[in-house]
Amino acid sequence: MQPEAQGTIITNAVSAEESKSIKAIAAKDGITAIKIRSSRMLLAYGFMSEVFDIFERYKTSVDMIVTSEVAISLTIDDTTHLEHIIEDLEKIGTVQIDENYTIICVVGNFKHVNKDVKKDVMKKIFNALEGIPIRMISYGGSDYNISLLVAADYKKQTLTALNEGLFEWE
Amino acid sequence: MQPEAQGTIITNAVSAEESKSIKAIAAKDGITAIKIRSSRMLLAYGFMSEVFDIFERYKTSVDMIVTSEVAISLTIDDTTHLEHIIEDLEKIGTVQIDENYTIICVVGNFKHVNKDVKKDVMKKIFNALEGIPIRMISYGGSDYNISLLVAADYKKQTLTALNEGLFEWE
Repeated sequence: MQPEAQGTIITNAVSAEESKSIKAIAAKDGITAIKIRSSRMLLAYGFMSEVFDIFERYKTSVDMIVTSEVAISLTIDDTTHLEHIIEDLEKIGTVQIDENYTIICVVGNFKHVNKDVKKDVMKKIFNALEGIPIRMISYGGSDYNISLLVAADYKKQTLTALNEGLFEWE
Repeated sequence: MQPEAQGTIITNAVSAEESKSIKAIAAKDGITAIKIRSSRMLLAYGFMSEVFDIFERYKTSVDMIVTSEVAISLTIDDTTHLEHIIEDLEKIGTVQIDENYTIICVVGNFKHVNKDVKKDVMKKIFNALEGIPIRMISYGGSDYNISLLVAADYKKQTLTALNEGLFEWE
């Protein structure tokens, strides 16, 4: 996150009770999601290296990364070289592009919280997000944030739901 | 997942009501989690490429990948070259190794479910998992599975909780 960048909202309205768990919610707009599907190659040791070599070739940094058994999804915000990136990715898999997404980043101490049943933050987050279509969830890069990708149309609803669900609960 | 491999449990006890959402829960044991932290380089376009070039060099395939603002976590099951991998990764960041983890993979049609408030599978999953420490969550590689990483000690508890939470709810 770049807190000074356009499209970023930082929430600091944390009660004393919650101060050890959730610290802030931030949003980053203008995100493009790229899915590369390749059932044959995904688990081969060379595949991930090929994928990220392409992004290096076009000097494009990647924000979120998530994986499944048959595909990898990642996000970029700089689409200057997107056409060339797609062209190269299509040589190693089936490519799907989804534009106009927003990364919502919930920052806190999740490790602490997960050990305390009464403050289970994952439960709170996904109860709050009920009914909102989530394109990507990435947690575990660190113990301090969970990243969610939602269509920009759902940004306001997502932020409102998280604020209510995380900061207004007892 | 390799359904024929040791340590894999496939659940097929899906009711007609749930048949469109959750299809199976599978587990893969013997997983090692590797976290690489590098606040300086993570968002630079060359960093991910460097990380995955190291795994290619040692012919080691990666299962799960998740990211945060300051770190990337990934999992491997083949630790033959782990010492060399750590040595090379330490040149580009701070490395943390966590051994003896299990990947739990919930397979279903999440896209469908996410649009239907009453069947919100993410809510069901994280309500079921309350109190279980989750090391990694990866969703969005495809619409058909969510991968969770838990310590092997929590495998049985996690599978039981998911079975009860996902298959026995109305």
